Amino acid sequence: MQKHNLVLMVAGMALAGAAMAAEDKLMSQAQGLFKPIPQEPPELEGNPSSPAKVELGKMLYFEPRLSKSHTISCNSCHQVGLGGTDMLETSVGHGWQMGRRNSPTVLNAVFNTAQFWDGRAEDLAEQAGGPLVNPVEMAITHEHAVEMIKGIPGYQAVFEEAFPKAEDPITIGNIQDVIALFEATLITPNAPFDQYLQGDADALTEQQKTGLELFVNKGCAACHSGVNLGGDQYQPFGVVEQPGADFLPREDKGRFEVTQSASDEYVYKVPSLRNIALTPPYFHSGKAWDLKQAVAVMGSAQLGAELNDEEVNSITAFLHSLTGEQPKVAYPILPPSTAETPQPQLGIDQ
Amino acid sequence: MQKHNLVLMVAGMALAGAAMAAEDKLMSQAQGLFKPIPQEPPELEGNPSSPAKVELGKMLYFEPRLSKSHTISCNSCHQVGLGGTDMLETSVGHGWQMGRRNSPTVLNAVFNTAQFWDGRAEDLAEQAGGPLVNPVEMAITHEHAVEMIKGIPGYQAVFEEAFPKAEDPITIGNIQDVIALFEATLITPNAPFDQYLQGDADALTEQQKTGLELFVNKGCAACHSGVNLGGDQYQPFGVVEQPGADFLPREDKGRFEVTQSASDEYVYKVPSLRNIALTPPYFHSGKAWDLKQAVAVMGSAQLGAELNDEEVNSITAFLHSLTGEQPKVAYPILPPSTAETPQPQLGIDQ
Repeated sequence: MQKHNLVLMVAGMALAGAAMAAEDKLMSQAQGLFKPIPQEPPELEGNPSSPAKVELGKMLYFEPRLSKSHTISCNSCHQVGLGGTDMLETSVGHGWQMGRRNSPTVLNAVFNTAQFWDGRAEDLAEQAGGPLVNPVEMAITHEHAVEMIKGIPGYQAVFEEAFPKAEDPITIGNIQDVIALFEATLITPNAPFDQYLQGDADALTEQQKTGLELFVNKGCAACHSGVNLGGDQYQPFGVVEQPGADFLPREDKGRFEVTQSASDEYVYKVPSLRNIALTPPYFHSGKAWDLKQAVAVMGSAQLGAELNDEEVNSITAFLHSLTGEQPKVAYPILPPSTAETPQPQLGIDQ
Repeated sequence: MQKHNLVLMVAGMALAGAAMAAEDKLMSQAQGLFKPIPQEPPELEGNPSSPAKVELGKMLYFEPRLSKSHTISCNSCHQVGLGGTDMLETSVGHGWQMGRRNSPTVLNAVFNTAQFWDGRAEDLAEQAGGPLVNPVEMAITHEHAVEMIKGIPGYQAVFEEAFPKAEDPITIGNIQDVIALFEATLITPNAPFDQYLQGDADALTEQQKTGLELFVNKGCAACHSGVNLGGDQYQPFGVVEQPGADFLPREDKGRFEVTQSASDEYVYKVPSLRNIALTPPYFHSGKAWDLKQAVAVMGSAQLGAELNDEEVNSITAFLHSLTGEQPKVAYPILPPSTAETPQPQLGIDQ
């Protein structure tokens, strides 16, 4: 072998080695920052699960008679076949009224440390009680929810099976608990990124790896980390520079409404990026329909970084690797209303 | 054996024999008038089925982006878990506008000889095109339906699989055809009455058999016969005596609107009674929430018969035997919107 060729070969091996070392480093960095979605739903503290409870929770999740009009169920705004959302800027509720903020996905919501954009509910069970009583959403009272379910005779036996020891199992607490237990099953494991985190370097494309590297090095991962790449921090929308009122309407002050603390003005829960490619439009305002645009706005508003087109494309490609296996849900059969069941109220002022 | 006892025994056997003969006679009468729901969906003329088409049809059936607001799908008014209905007097459509007539069940609709309360659509595929363009329902145009589905990139491959020979498979005709093919799978076999028709005399209770006998002898079966106990005739609401305007609002003249024939005033398609216990409220006006009340009104309006409470109860018990196995539907995962997908229009005048 000529000396010249030998030098080239050694140099080539060194380069390949360096590339592999860089690949390994990226993977270990990622494994330190993020965690895969588990295969099985997590347990909920103080809310033990059972197949009967999950089945009942699914029935109530699809139950439109939990709304004043009998037309709106949990699944109306958090559709299990639409990435757990309704793909609207903000949802349509009772009397065609519009919600204030974009409906967050129910998928993997169990891994968030609090619920709603402003974190005002501690967990899924508490969250489930909110839209029921919101006058622009389902527009009933918790008392009416109980009256309604008691007014549908077929539910009695299902509640007794779910709560065999309870004397009077149909309570608002049990309704919220079983909805939460069903929602906890709506997890999406085995995304390409999860396979990557579990050691399969080929699960991401080269562009996705470049995107992941940018995601880490530009600072996105400072907020979007953990199992949900988000969902566990509060941050101002506009850490560096407030975006325009088109994306951040000034009348909605976010978590300030919960804490009344000036430092919480325009602060929101950092959303999960899991299945983000399935859940346009983006931001709490739902004003960005284009994922690339959302990435670019995040760069400037949160990081003070003007990302170029190639960077935006790579990060967006990485975000597509967060799409996991969507939940398999058998549509539940709901018991019929009877002559004694409370009837729907379609009017807005009824 | 004493002569006295022998007489009693013979008399007893004769009575039992007469009862059995009456039972047999009722069953053969029923077998002549009605047919069981088949185990498998029927074929649709000129619309051959395939698993890929049925799966696509299911996606489109659950697709809210086929409505102007992106909030209303076929399943909104014909929920597969609510007996194929929405359990409202009349449905809520675009902009919270109310429909004119009660949403008929989609379950077993394939066995009706025409669709809609006035029979204005010949079959399920033609029916599927109607609510899309009704301004108080989904409120789009057929052109927009095609534009919409073409604007969701994930649908292209699914249509190509369903229509492998078509050059441009996303057409309004194909959309309507596959929805019809999915709907044709929504049949509910094995109701107690079907088991009875297949020879199992014990499938009905004594009260249900009394109800069946009344149903035949009082004349109900003159209109409610065949596989669907209805769905294959047109009759005036008020054959003998028009019911009050609470049940029959005078401004809706029924099939007259289709034919402009005076004899079709207040004429409607006889509804199927399959799964009737699951689908309150009743009548085209949706004004009767109580099945017993509906039976009594039918007696006086259609037959000129004042049914007593016991008769109403027996007929109602028989109607409960028409509840079949409800369809098992796995909720479809729908492809996401993108930056190029047409956006929802929530306004009524947009």
